[in-house]
Amino acid sequence: MTDPVPMTWTRKHLLTLEELSADEIRFILDTAKGLAEVSTRSVKKVPALRGKVVVNAFWESSTRTRMSFELAASRLSADVVDFSEKGSSVAKGESLIDTARNIEAMGVDAIVIRHPAAGAAQLLARTVKCSVINAGDGAHEHPTQGLLDLYTIRERFGGKVEGLKVAIVGDIANSRVARSDLWGLTKLGAEVILVGPPTLVPKAFEKLGARVVHDFDSIIGEVDVVNMLRVQFERIKTSQFPTVREFTRFFGMTWDRFQRCKKDVFIMHPGPMNRGIEIQSDIADGPQSGILTQVTNGLAVRMAVLYLVTQTTAG
Amino acid sequence: MTDPVPMTWTRKHLLTLEELSADEIRFILDTAKGLAEVSTRSVKKVPALRGKVVVNAFWESSTRTRMSFELAASRLSADVVDFSEKGSSVAKGESLIDTARNIEAMGVDAIVIRHPAAGAAQLLARTVKCSVINAGDGAHEHPTQGLLDLYTIRERFGGKVEGLKVAIVGDIANSRVARSDLWGLTKLGAEVILVGPPTLVPKAFEKLGARVVHDFDSIIGEVDVVNMLRVQFERIKTSQFPTVREFTRFFGMTWDRFQRCKKDVFIMHPGPMNRGIEIQSDIADGPQSGILTQVTNGLAVRMAVLYLVTQTTAG
Amino acid sequence: MTDPVPMTWTRKHLLTLEELSADEIRFILDTAKGLAEVSTRSVKKVPALRGKVVVNAFWESSTRTRMSFELAASRLSADVVDFSEKGSSVAKGESLIDTARNIEAMGVDAIVIRHPAAGAAQLLARTVKCSVINAGDGAHEHPTQGLLDLYTIRERFGGKVEGLKVAIVGDIANSRVARSDLWGLTKLGAEVILVGPPTLVPKAFEKLGARVVHDFDSIIGEVDVVNMLRVQFERIKTSQFPTVREFTRFFGMTWDRFQRCKKDVFIMHPGPMNRGIEIQSDIADGPQSGILTQVTNGLAVRMAVLYLVTQTTAG
Repeated sequence: MTDPVPMTWTRKHLLTLEELSADEIRFILDTAKGLAEVSTRSVKKVPALRGKVVVNAFWESSTRTRMSFELAASRLSADVVDFSEKGSSVAKGESLIDTARNIEAMGVDAIVIRHPAAGAAQLLARTVKCSVINAGDGAHEHPTQGLLDLYTIRERFGGKVEGLKVAIVGDIANSRVARSDLWGLTKLGAEVILVGPPTLVPKAFEKLGARVVHDFDSIIGEVDVVNMLRVQFERIKTSQFPTVREFTRFFGMTWDRFQRCKKDVFIMHPGPMNRGIEIQSDIADGPQSGILTQVTNGLAVRMAVLYLVTQTTAG
Repeated sequence: MTDPVPMTWTRKHLLTLEELSADEIRFILDTAKGLAEVSTRSVKKVPALRGKVVVNAFWESSTRTRMSFELAASRLSADVVDFSEKGSSVAKGESLIDTARNIEAMGVDAIVIRHPAAGAAQLLARTVKCSVINAGDGAHEHPTQGLLDLYTIRERFGGKVEGLKVAIVGDIANSRVARSDLWGLTKLGAEVILVGPPTLVPKAFEKLGARVVHDFDSIIGEVDVVNMLRVQFERIKTSQFPTVREFTRFFGMTWDRFQRCKKDVFIMHPGPMNRGIEIQSDIADGPQSGILTQVTNGLAVRMAVLYLVTQTTAG
Repeated sequence: MTDPVPMTWTRKHLLTLEELSADEIRFILDTAKGLAEVSTRSVKKVPALRGKVVVNAFWESSTRTRMSFELAASRLSADVVDFSEKGSSVAKGESLIDTARNIEAMGVDAIVIRHPAAGAAQLLARTVKCSVINAGDGAHEHPTQGLLDLYTIRERFGGKVEGLKVAIVGDIANSRVARSDLWGLTKLGAEVILVGPPTLVPKAFEKLGARVVHDFDSIIGEVDVVNMLRVQFERIKTSQFPTVREFTRFFGMTWDRFQRCKKDVFIMHPGPMNRGIEIQSDIADGPQSGILTQVTNGLAVRMAVLYLVTQTTAG
C-alpha cells in the first residue's frame, strides 16, 4: 500500500494521462479513494462544489459516461447542465471554439467534453478560462477511463500497480481507452502488453513503452490483469477486422483461455460488453471480474477530477 | 371516508397492482394524500429524499410520465438523472440487465423503468439491489397510472371506491392502463366494466373479475365513472380496429352519450386526448371531467411511491 | 447613468417587448444588474426561487437559449425540468394548449416556451395560471434577447440608451430578434435603422418607428451600434435572399466597412455567428465586439425575468 502523495494539485484541466506525472496520477487516485465513501452513504451528497456549474458537452452520444459525470458532479452538489448538439456544423473546429466560448460566457466552472476529433479537449483548454475535462477525444485519450482502470487495479492488488503485467486486448489502434490505460499503467510501473491482430495493434505502439503481441495464447499464463476492449461492430467488414467468429477464437476471453490464465487473474472491460464475443458471459459475471466495480469506481474518480480541477479556478 | 391504514410498508419495488393487497394500495393512497399538500406550497420541496438518486430509464418515449416522475423526485429533494437509450440493441433482454447493473453500479437508489416488453420491470427487480418502479411495461401494467386513477376516484367520491361502477372504454387488449386500473379497482371493491368492440375487449378479461361489454350504450346509464382510453392511431387499419368515425360513433364519449350518463358521472382519461374522437372536447373541459386532476394527483402518487420504496432500502 | 426605476412589478408573464412600458423595461434591466453579481461569485447561487419549478418547453431546438434559461433558473435555486416534444402533432394549436395545461397541472411556477408559431406564448398565457415567458415565437418576438441587447448597450454606453443610433442588419423580415430589439430600443429613446435588401427589410417597418435603409454604406459612419443578424442559410436560394457572396459584399461587417464606422462603434450579434459571412472573424473577437458579453448578460436578464414574473404568482 502506497502512502498518500503529499502534493498540491495545480492543473486546471484534465486532458490526457500522457501529460500527468506518476505523482499527479496517484494524487487523483488518493482523492478518489477519499470521495468513494460518499457514494456508500444514505445521503450521497457533499457540498464541495455547491454553486459551481458543470456542463456536459458531448458531441458523441454516450449515456454511461455522461451519466457518470452527471452523478459525480451532483454528488458534489454542483449544478450540471447538458449541452448536446448533434449535426455536422458543430463538428468543425471553428464552431467548437465558438460554442465553448458561448458556454463559458454563461459562467460555468468546468466543461466536460467528448468529441470525435483527437485534440478537441486540448483545443478547448487553450480557448476558455474555465476547467476542461476530456471525456474522450477521437481515438486519442479517455483519461478518466484510464484513471478508473488504474484505481480498480490498485484496489484489487493491495494498493500497488508497480510490477503488474496487464494485457489490453482488441482494437488497440482505434481505442482511446487503450491509449490512456497505456500511459497510466506504464507511469505507475506496470508492464503493458497490447494484444490483437497486426492490423489492429501496429508495432509502433512499442515506442510508447508497450509490448506488442499478436498471439494472445503466448502470454495468457503470465498476466495479472486482462482488459478486454469492446468489439466495435462498425469496424468489422473493413479489411482491418477479422470476422467476429475469428476474433472470438483468437482473441476472445473464452472459458478455455480463462482457465489457462493465472489463478487470480483480474478481468476488466470498459463496457458495454458484447457477451459471447470478446468475453464469455460467466467470466464477466464471475468473482474475478472487475467490470461493475469499474463503473462504481468511475464515479469516485470523476468526483475527484471535478473537485481538483475546479479548486484551482475557484475565485 | 376510510380511516388511514395502519401498516408498515415493506416492498422495495412497485411492479404491478396485481401483486399488491388492498391495504397496500390504500396505504400508498394515504401517503400520497399527505404529500399532495407539498405541491400547493410556495416552496414546493421537502427534504425527504435528499442525497438519494432516482434514474429515469425510459426505453419508450414519454414526456409526461417522465416529467411527472422527475418532478415528484425533485419535490422530495432527490437527484434525478435521465437515462434514455434509443435503438434496438438495448431492447434485448440481456442488454437491459447489463444496462441496469451498470446504472446500479453508479450508486442509485431507484430506477424508474418504462420498457416495451411486458415483464421488463420484474426482470430488473430480480437483477438489481436498488428499488425498481414500473412506469409501464408493454401492454402489461402501468401501476402508478392505476394508483393515480384510484386516488382521483377516491377523492371524487368522498374517500370511497367500494361499490362504484367504473367503465373503461377503448382498446383494452393493448392497454396497460386498463390492466392496472382493473386490478386496483377490483381490489378496492369497485365493479369494472370493460367496454369496446370484441376485437379489442376479449371475453378472457372476465376471468380477471371484469364485466365485458361490447355495447357501450347498454351500460351508459348505470356507471359512476367512465375512463376513456386514448385511441392509438397506429393500430387503426389493422383488422383489430374499426375506423375512427365508427369508433367515435359506437364508443366515443359524445355529448349525446354524456347526457344519458348518471347526473354526477365522473369522466377520466389518461391523456394525451384525441379531442373529438374518443372524447368530446367540452366534456373533457367540463366540471365532471377529472382529467387535469388526474395529472396533478399523479405527482402526489409518484412522490408517495418513490418515498415508500426507497425507505425500505435506505441504509 | 439613469437612476433605478422605483416601481412594483405586476406582470405575471413576459410575452413581448411591444407591450412593456419604458419604465418596465428599465426595471427589468435594473433588476438584472443587481442579479448579475451572483454569476461572478464562487458560489453562483441564491435561494430566491427555491422550491419553484420552471419548465423549459421548447418546440424548436435551441441549445443556447434553453441552456441560458436553465442556468438562470438554477442560479436562483429553482428546479428546472425540460419538456421537449418533437413531431408535428404538438405543433397544432389545440395540442399546445392541452400540453400546457398538463404541464401546469403538475404544479409548475413558470413555463418558458419557444414555438414556431407567432403568438404561441400569448395563447399559452391566456390558458394557464402559471407564468409564461416567451423564448421566441416564430418571427414575432424574442423579448429576453431584446432585453439582453438593451442591457448590453446600456452598460457599454454608461447607462444611457437614449439618443443612440442602432443599426440592425440582415434578414429583418424573418427575425424575431429584430422585432424585439426594435420595440425595446425605440421605447428607451434610441433611433433604430433597419438595414438589408428590400426583400428582407420591407418599408412597412417604418410604421413601427424605424428608419429603413437598403444601402448599408450610406449610414455606416453615423451609427453607435451595429447588430449583425445571423444569415439563415435555409433561406438562401429563395428569391428573398441574395447569394452569400453578394450578402457579405453589400451587408457584411467586413474589415473595410468596420473602418468606416465611428471610432467607438459597438458590434453585436445574437449568435451563433457565421464568421466570414455576416461578420469578419477578427471584428467579432475584437475589443469593440459585445458578442460574448451579450451571452453573459443574457443570464442576468433571464434571472431577472424569472424572478419578477414568479413573484407576482407566489402564494
